[in-house]
Amino acid sequence: MSELRHIALPEPTLRRLPWYLAYVNLLSAQGVEYVSSTRIAKAIKVDASQIAKDLSFLNLRGRTRIGYEVKDLVRVLTDFLGFKRRHNTFMMGVGSLGAALIQDSGLAQYGLHIVAGFDVNPLRIGTSISGVPIYHVSELRQRQAEYEAEVGVLAVPVENAQEAADALIGGGIRAIWNFTPFRIKAADDVVVQNTSIYSHLAVMYNRMDARRGIDTLERDESGSI
Amino acid sequence: MSELRHIALPEPTLRRLPWYLAYVNLLSAQGVEYVSSTRIAKAIKVDASQIAKDLSFLNLRGRTRIGYEVKDLVRVLTDFLGFKRRHNTFMMGVGSLGAALIQDSGLAQYGLHIVAGFDVNPLRIGTSISGVPIYHVSELRQRQAEYEAEVGVLAVPVENAQEAADALIGGGIRAIWNFTPFRIKAADDVVVQNTSIYSHLAVMYNRMDARRGIDTLERDESGSI
Repeated sequence: MSELRHIALPEPTLRRLPWYLAYVNLLSAQGVEYVSSTRIAKAIKVDASQIAKDLSFLNLRGRTRIGYEVKDLVRVLTDFLGFKRRHNTFMMGVGSLGAALIQDSGLAQYGLHIVAGFDVNPLRIGTSISGVPIYHVSELRQRQAEYEAEVGVLAVPVENAQEAADALIGGGIRAIWNFTPFRIKAADDVVVQNTSIYSHLAVMYNRMDARRGIDTLERDESGSI
Repeated sequence: MSELRHIALPEPTLRRLPWYLAYVNLLSAQGVEYVSSTRIAKAIKVDASQIAKDLSFLNLRGRTRIGYEVKDLVRVLTDFLGFKRRHNTFMMGVGSLGAALIQDSGLAQYGLHIVAGFDVNPLRIGTSISGVPIYHVSELRQRQAEYEAEVGVLAVPVENAQEAADALIGGGIRAIWNFTPFRIKAADDVVVQNTSIYSHLAVMYNRMDARRGIDTLERDESGSI
């Protein structure tokens, strides 16, 4: 498996794998032993051929008439996705979002272990959140020697995003999970994963508005008949 | 603006708009009056022509040699993105992630006001989190009459995701922000926004592993010289 993990899959495929895992975990809990790509397709609304293609990247192939072994899917997907491996993580910014993420024990279930938080607010420094100690940003390098964090999460205000990213990179961290809507700059050897949940809100609001627009249009049309 | 909001923009454009807003908010705070698409491009690493195209959807056009008025960009983007409008919201599931999201006051700054939480755990029902009351799921319809929520956030375990979505839809909610990795089914008139932050983790881990793979390769190659 370890060499398999080094394959950089297409991002759309990577994003679908956790959906497959969530579904086959359910099947596994229900005692289901085999599942066809058609059945997965029906459950999660992705083309069966796409599913077969995605799984073939992981050398998973279904058998004619029987399909995939559920146990195999669970094992290979879990291992490949890295959710069982521990990734020590620093939280940059322990304001509202940062503190919330520290308190979400779900992240640890997916392999992200937040081991320390950093902030510049004197009221926060020296405290702890759910057992995670909070230090001043200036201590980052020193704490890195102790914790060997692989990942840094950015949950600082937009105006401090670049500076906070630079501090993480300066401390030797090579993967940044960026929750700010700011597009940080980093050298090519740094992995930057942008997860601006507020951008998703914008997409959702726009769809809601568009829907209302259509509703209005439909009402207008029916009114004119 | 209201008719503008009813245009369903391409999703990639919609996702970029909050980046532009974050950047021009910064410029505005710094007292900058005009900005060119080239300058925005340099700051956030998106092609200048793409930026001009995205902004033209909102009838924003830069003037030759002067560029865009920062004040205009802030106003139009903020209005279009819906962050200033109040969207009453129900939280389904107030376990670790749900409780964390309720505590993230950042969401309210982006127009998402969580007014009530729902759960089935008797220990949680009747309590409140950051002032938000927690009710039993069976009370959803009744509470909806009181709160008129537009949005429901799904933060329940995967095995309850569909059931919780059905309860929201049954209560008249037409927009679901799904934080579970489960692909819920809903009628076409329901907006479903999937934000599986754990899927982003998988993407990030894979890139980290791929990077390590490349590092190993490079080391091997230099060793063989």
